[in-house]
Amino acid sequence: MDNTSLDYLFHPRTIAIAGVSSDSTKFNAGRRFMQALIDCGFKGKLYPINPGGGKVVGVKIYQSIVDVPGIVDYVVSAIPAKYTPRLIADCATKGVKAVHLFTSGFSEVEDREGKSLEAEVLKIARRSSIRLIGPNCMGLYCPREGLSFAQSFPTQSGFPKRSGPLGLIAQSGGNCIYCIREATSRGVYFSKVISYGNAVDINETDLLEYLAGDTDTEIIAAYVEGVKDGSRFASVLRKITKIKPVIVFKAGGTETGARTAASHTGAMSGSGRIWRDLLKQSGAIQVASIEEMVDVSLAFLRLSLSQGRNTAVIGVGGGASVICSDDCSDAGLVLPMLPVQTRRRLKALYGTEAGCIFRNPVDIVPFMGTEVLMDSILAIAGCDQVDIVIIQLGFDIWALIERGYPIEVYLDTMINFKNMVNKPVVVTLHQCATKEAKLLALEVHTKLCEAGFAVYPSIGHAASAINKVIRYNEWREGIREGDG
Amino acid sequence: MDNTSLDYLFHPRTIAIAGVSSDSTKFNAGRRFMQALIDCGFKGKLYPINPGGGKVVGVKIYQSIVDVPGIVDYVVSAIPAKYTPRLIADCATKGVKAVHLFTSGFSEVEDREGKSLEAEVLKIARRSSIRLIGPNCMGLYCPREGLSFAQSFPTQSGFPKRSGPLGLIAQSGGNCIYCIREATSRGVYFSKVISYGNAVDINETDLLEYLAGDTDTEIIAAYVEGVKDGSRFASVLRKITKIKPVIVFKAGGTETGARTAASHTGAMSGSGRIWRDLLKQSGAIQVASIEEMVDVSLAFLRLSLSQGRNTAVIGVGGGASVICSDDCSDAGLVLPMLPVQTRRRLKALYGTEAGCIFRNPVDIVPFMGTEVLMDSILAIAGCDQVDIVIIQLGFDIWALIERGYPIEVYLDTMINFKNMVNKPVVVTLHQCATKEAKLLALEVHTKLCEAGFAVYPSIGHAASAINKVIRYNEWREGIREGDG
Repeated sequence: MDNTSLDYLFHPRTIAIAGVSSDSTKFNAGRRFMQALIDCGFKGKLYPINPGGGKVVGVKIYQSIVDVPGIVDYVVSAIPAKYTPRLIADCATKGVKAVHLFTSGFSEVEDREGKSLEAEVLKIARRSSIRLIGPNCMGLYCPREGLSFAQSFPTQSGFPKRSGPLGLIAQSGGNCIYCIREATSRGVYFSKVISYGNAVDINETDLLEYLAGDTDTEIIAAYVEGVKDGSRFASVLRKITKIKPVIVFKAGGTETGARTAASHTGAMSGSGRIWRDLLKQSGAIQVASIEEMVDVSLAFLRLSLSQGRNTAVIGVGGGASVICSDDCSDAGLVLPMLPVQTRRRLKALYGTEAGCIFRNPVDIVPFMGTEVLMDSILAIAGCDQVDIVIIQLGFDIWALIERGYPIEVYLDTMINFKNMVNKPVVVTLHQCATKEAKLLALEVHTKLCEAGFAVYPSIGHAASAINKVIRYNEWREGIREGDG
Repeated sequence: MDNTSLDYLFHPRTIAIAGVSSDSTKFNAGRRFMQALIDCGFKGKLYPINPGGGKVVGVKIYQSIVDVPGIVDYVVSAIPAKYTPRLIADCATKGVKAVHLFTSGFSEVEDREGKSLEAEVLKIARRSSIRLIGPNCMGLYCPREGLSFAQSFPTQSGFPKRSGPLGLIAQSGGNCIYCIREATSRGVYFSKVISYGNAVDINETDLLEYLAGDTDTEIIAAYVEGVKDGSRFASVLRKITKIKPVIVFKAGGTETGARTAASHTGAMSGSGRIWRDLLKQSGAIQVASIEEMVDVSLAFLRLSLSQGRNTAVIGVGGGASVICSDDCSDAGLVLPMLPVQTRRRLKALYGTEAGCIFRNPVDIVPFMGTEVLMDSILAIAGCDQVDIVIIQLGFDIWALIERGYPIEVYLDTMINFKNMVNKPVVVTLHQCATKEAKLLALEVHTKLCEAGFAVYPSIGHAASAINKVIRYNEWREGIREGDG
């Protein structure tokens, strides 16, 4: 696969932003894009553009792209749709290589003008060999190169400057932002992200091909509403999934969803059933939400999952253990009964079986302190029958809140334990109903993510992600054996 | 139905708590039960019991139930299982009517002793006409009578003293606590809650019959791992669902879940498929989690849902609108296209269609301020085609955080709107990935719940709950027509 053709998109020396207003009292998308690049540490030159001229953050605003003294590699456009053809023509004059059209009001709107405007813009771009991202999208986030579309605010920072192995393409800007926020809050960072909107020129399949060959990208995630060329998409996907996992969230599968997708990105979305079959046959991992996209990415990145599905769940109450047994089974994991000697060991540690369950899930409320807890977890994790360990951390009923235990002691125990066991360890944050529990869960979540844990909001989320990763690994193993 | 037979359980004049230690430095379940009753404002006499005697919170500890000077209506037992037969015998001597056995280590543990001990306890109780709750459970929460099993701590308060229309029975203490915490955090309060554990005497069917006749209870929720007599349960359920909605979460439907349920409450749980059929035929509303139990209760209590499924979703971004279209459709709701005149009105309000979707879901990011937002929402909610309004409140991308908007202004707008529209209004909290967004969401959640809103964590949760309530209402309407 040609992995270089789009690489220049991520290495612009200079960027012009069309539609930057010098009036800082009003909301202005262009200024936000410029500020996002500054905040993310873009090293090249930035040229704000506006027919009205003026200055912004001390930088001169040029009245037109053609007025910019130096070269312009890349343009971000936040001007109204109707002025876009003129802008692209100016870009052609200037020798611009690529334009990201944030601007909406093209093929996704109801009236015909939008569609003909989009066709016109494409025509001019093609004539001048300018590649287009969008229209109607957020563009690029590539922390290594200082490219971003999220400005920092006193109340919320922009996207992290830290890079990671996840590549993302997203037809929706909002879902793209959400995925980045959700992933980075759970310790998953990005190589390259492309919000590509209406995909009038560069489309989902081009981007998948690019990410497949990108050495910074280990895993690919895609939020797709519709594709331009179904058979090319399927054939490219089939090739890529043999090299890297591709996680696909296909939205717009219902009739109403398809109608909305058409209004959103002008996408032709196709039925849910067709997509399920297509993705399955292509070896892609289908997910049903942005959260699940992150769940699965996290399982790929944080857990060394082989083919073993035998899971021990160290729990947090009898009823919760019953539910999590069902959730694990429904997701395809196996909870083997712990061997007699392990159950005896646990009974010895706790002095009684009353109020506990030692079979698996193991229900051990940590009233006995961290030492007993640690010994128990080690005894369970050490069993040959156990491939994966899931620890349910409860807040309302582990009595951590009520008894005012120092949470640090428990977290240190967890973190130590992770280093002592050579098996995938997952933590789930269970039952956080009260405000106090939610605040504590947020704190614990942050700390455990920083310590390198795969943290999930529930057993169901964790089990499903684990099983999808194991299934993919098995599938790929099967293909390799088939090849050999 | 006999609605009086168990009523005395909820009106004890005096309560003895067996197993209260005077040593406040150690964890002691008995002392916690006693403190929970004090914290909840129980008006009757409390008698702590312990062979060692002494004092607790200034109250004399009696060495035995028989030593208590006055009458004892109700006993909470937190002593080890092996001493329980003796305690029940003493209760018989004293003329106690009912005993709640918190104590575990009976039929749910692996060794035979537990089972024979349970049989012995039951035998003594039956001989003396003492009714038993449990063993292996948390007992009663009835705020109107000051009965509770949740002590208040400086870091977390006990259960609310406020009463409400939801009656709950739960075979699991932990899940019972979680359900109470989750429900009350969302503004759903309880008439009576019974955590009933192994159900050696009073069982789920007895309790359902009781709640069916209880005038304080409008809706019944049940967490069940297994039932004692399947055909009686089904026949009672069939009768009750015609009078009140019964929401059932049946756990332990998988093989592993059944094994865990046996270890937890000694329950024989039965296959998931059988239960699905049984619940459907009985007119019960089956749910798959504690959260969904609360989701559905909330929809019953806060929304006047008739048979109309036509929903308008007022949203928060194009991609989110595509997803929520799918989620609503999958859950059985209908999103009618808004009429041309309404779409024209919205286009006039926003000046353009670019960056918005006016079809339904309606994607209107509130950059234009609350007045335009309010006018839009009123125009949409006023459509004849619309039965239900769902507002997606976003935090990351509604730019509420970034732009430092005073959140109060938006909330006031919402609250005003709710009073102006005579249709069910639901709010969902969408996309709360960052810490700042989560904290803001928590604040908004609390305020909107206090203002009487049905608030859901996602469109999927809301849509599914709404559809289940409408389906129940249709079913009951059908039965009435059949009767007439």
